[in-house]
Amino acid sequence: MSTRQSTSDLMAALRPSAAGLPESRIVTVFNHGRNKPGLIPLWAGEGDLPTPPFIAEAASKALLGGETFYTYQRGLPELRQAIADYHTRHYKRAFSPETFFVTGGGMQAIQLAFQMTVGTGDEVLVPTPSWPNFRGAIEVQGGIAKSVPMSLERDGWRLDLDTLFAAAGPRTRAIVINSPANPSGWAASQDDLAAILAFTRKHGLWIVADEIYGQFYFGGSGMAPSLQHLIEPDDRVLFAQTFSKNWAMTGWRIGWLQAPAALGQVIENLVQYNTSGVAPFMQRGAIAALNDGDAFLKSQVDRARQGLEIVTKALKPLNSVRYVAPAGAFYGFFGIDGMSDSLSAALRIVDEANVGLAPGVAFGDGSEPYFRVCFLRSPEQLQEAMARLNRWIGQQQR
Amino acid sequence: MSTRQSTSDLMAALRPSAAGLPESRIVTVFNHGRNKPGLIPLWAGEGDLPTPPFIAEAASKALLGGETFYTYQRGLPELRQAIADYHTRHYKRAFSPETFFVTGGGMQAIQLAFQMTVGTGDEVLVPTPSWPNFRGAIEVQGGIAKSVPMSLERDGWRLDLDTLFAAAGPRTRAIVINSPANPSGWAASQDDLAAILAFTRKHGLWIVADEIYGQFYFGGSGMAPSLQHLIEPDDRVLFAQTFSKNWAMTGWRIGWLQAPAALGQVIENLVQYNTSGVAPFMQRGAIAALNDGDAFLKSQVDRARQGLEIVTKALKPLNSVRYVAPAGAFYGFFGIDGMSDSLSAALRIVDEANVGLAPGVAFGDGSEPYFRVCFLRSPEQLQEAMARLNRWIGQQQR
Repeated sequence: MSTRQSTSDLMAALRPSAAGLPESRIVTVFNHGRNKPGLIPLWAGEGDLPTPPFIAEAASKALLGGETFYTYQRGLPELRQAIADYHTRHYKRAFSPETFFVTGGGMQAIQLAFQMTVGTGDEVLVPTPSWPNFRGAIEVQGGIAKSVPMSLERDGWRLDLDTLFAAAGPRTRAIVINSPANPSGWAASQDDLAAILAFTRKHGLWIVADEIYGQFYFGGSGMAPSLQHLIEPDDRVLFAQTFSKNWAMTGWRIGWLQAPAALGQVIENLVQYNTSGVAPFMQRGAIAALNDGDAFLKSQVDRARQGLEIVTKALKPLNSVRYVAPAGAFYGFFGIDGMSDSLSAALRIVDEANVGLAPGVAFGDGSEPYFRVCFLRSPEQLQEAMARLNRWIGQQQR
Repeated sequence: MSTRQSTSDLMAALRPSAAGLPESRIVTVFNHGRNKPGLIPLWAGEGDLPTPPFIAEAASKALLGGETFYTYQRGLPELRQAIADYHTRHYKRAFSPETFFVTGGGMQAIQLAFQMTVGTGDEVLVPTPSWPNFRGAIEVQGGIAKSVPMSLERDGWRLDLDTLFAAAGPRTRAIVINSPANPSGWAASQDDLAAILAFTRKHGLWIVADEIYGQFYFGGSGMAPSLQHLIEPDDRVLFAQTFSKNWAMTGWRIGWLQAPAALGQVIENLVQYNTSGVAPFMQRGAIAALNDGDAFLKSQVDRARQGLEIVTKALKPLNSVRYVAPAGAFYGFFGIDGMSDSLSAALRIVDEANVGLAPGVAFGDGSEPYFRVCFLRSPEQLQEAMARLNRWIGQQQR
């Protein structure tokens, strides 16, 4: 049996939903440029700062102190309390620790949300451009991610609610609301969110809410509009959250799922049979992040504001670039005239400009001609990257 | 709307496979006795030693040194190489790092194996007694765990291969082979494994192989018989492995999946959409465990042998106890005459004897009248626990 033959036999023996999963196109570019000397990597959704010492030290102390045994599947009670306190402090209403469940990153929170709500052939509405992992996690479940394309208007990306609601059909189980959005920077208004919640209440749908960029909001003062201000205890809203962005903990893989307390046993069971929990020593670091990390969080948001200014100043004046400053998150999402294959262009930008961008094609319907640049980076590095990018764009127009 | 009404509405709005998952009965007893003073906990599948310093320090150093960013979905290349080296060293044949994929514990390796192979309505054969999480992970997939009951003979548990093969039907996709087995201590012979592999090759089935207790073998010298000695590169065998048992890292949640290299991209995609990888600083600890941990591993196995002796000496002479010394793993699995409800008896044993056991009912068909005792503990603690247990058993027979 030849290798090619045996590989195709193995693939054919897999569950089709697993074999057919899309490869992350961000990773394709990442793998292409990972070891290139001098490359400035702006492709991933992470900043350039390592986890601050007060968090790393809290985890390290617990690890060296022997907190290395199995623990609560729902998370350490102290951590669940700290998450509730964080919410109460930032959203100015009371939250119960019983509604928070510690997960292996925001990604696992999303995956658990879909495991709870989506089976084979079920549909989930996903406004696009969107972070590709929503589609991936839905398809792992054998579900169908139904795109609801947003449009780029003069003042930014727009989600038309009539279009969204019209897309719901008899197999629709859930709607993904990612606000502020990765990659587009779109942020729902409080009225949008109220209308979406009313629609899902009426039709018995779930909302999978990704508000992980809620602190990174440039459309006004304070945090972005949020479903947190609207929900009642029994609303079918599942929030995926992460420590990654606020506290520079991307590599840790720790986050939380917020869900009605009544679903606690189901979530505990799912955690048990997926990963059996999160390391207790990591949870000690997470407690430090929540209880002592508001100042670091503020510095992260300030850093993103600085980055936004640099990217906007660099891209806005260019005639050949379509760019509107985002309302939230920490990405510039822009098109370059004459570029239609974002993946091959992103690979060329790695090779020729030594800058790593995420190709639009990664983000679903309507995203192909765009590129995503992460601006949660040191101003100096970002200045240099934008200078390189401007030169490269100029060369393409000759 | 009353709370009870709204809870049942929420449960009804879930995917049935998620809502219907079984609760771990081990956790039920654990939660009952978790904070009881002086209780000796022998319910969980973990030893009493924390992770040894040389492993914890390697992870801590990486954490404090800033290895806190996203990393390879398949695992750090150095760790995959260290896993391959460990296998080459212990199984005396060559292994490629391309066949190893780092996971969030052995549990996630099992979950990925079933995500790859089992869809709604597909069957998996599971010899019982079995670790309950096999059934749980299969049912998360909407699959059916079909029990193949083993029998307790004079010389130990027996899996009848004709019974196993006869249980395979048109919807069967995989067979779980857990050897040495949790909880029964059964270990397949090399001939058994060859026959099972031949059967799955003939019928195009997958084997999900859990050989995590392979080092804990009392049926002869060296490691337990293993499929590792038999497989070819394209065999449909998926091994779930963990750092938990060999190196006292239960709480870490780190392990690996071993699979044909041709499935690498599918596994990378699944990791991406489930948890997006394992913390790089934890992977540094895992590298230390593999490269510098053979001596600690030997001390763990010696500790288990001591524990086995204590448990066997305590239980074997009792007329009212059905017990055969296990061939592998680190559990005693025994019945007490007159006890048929293992869950309520285990709760009573917590209350009255101050010893934590796992109730047989947790382990599936044919396991109900049994109890599981973990003996990877300090000899002194284990002696005391067995004395308490003997007293309690004596009191029941009056």
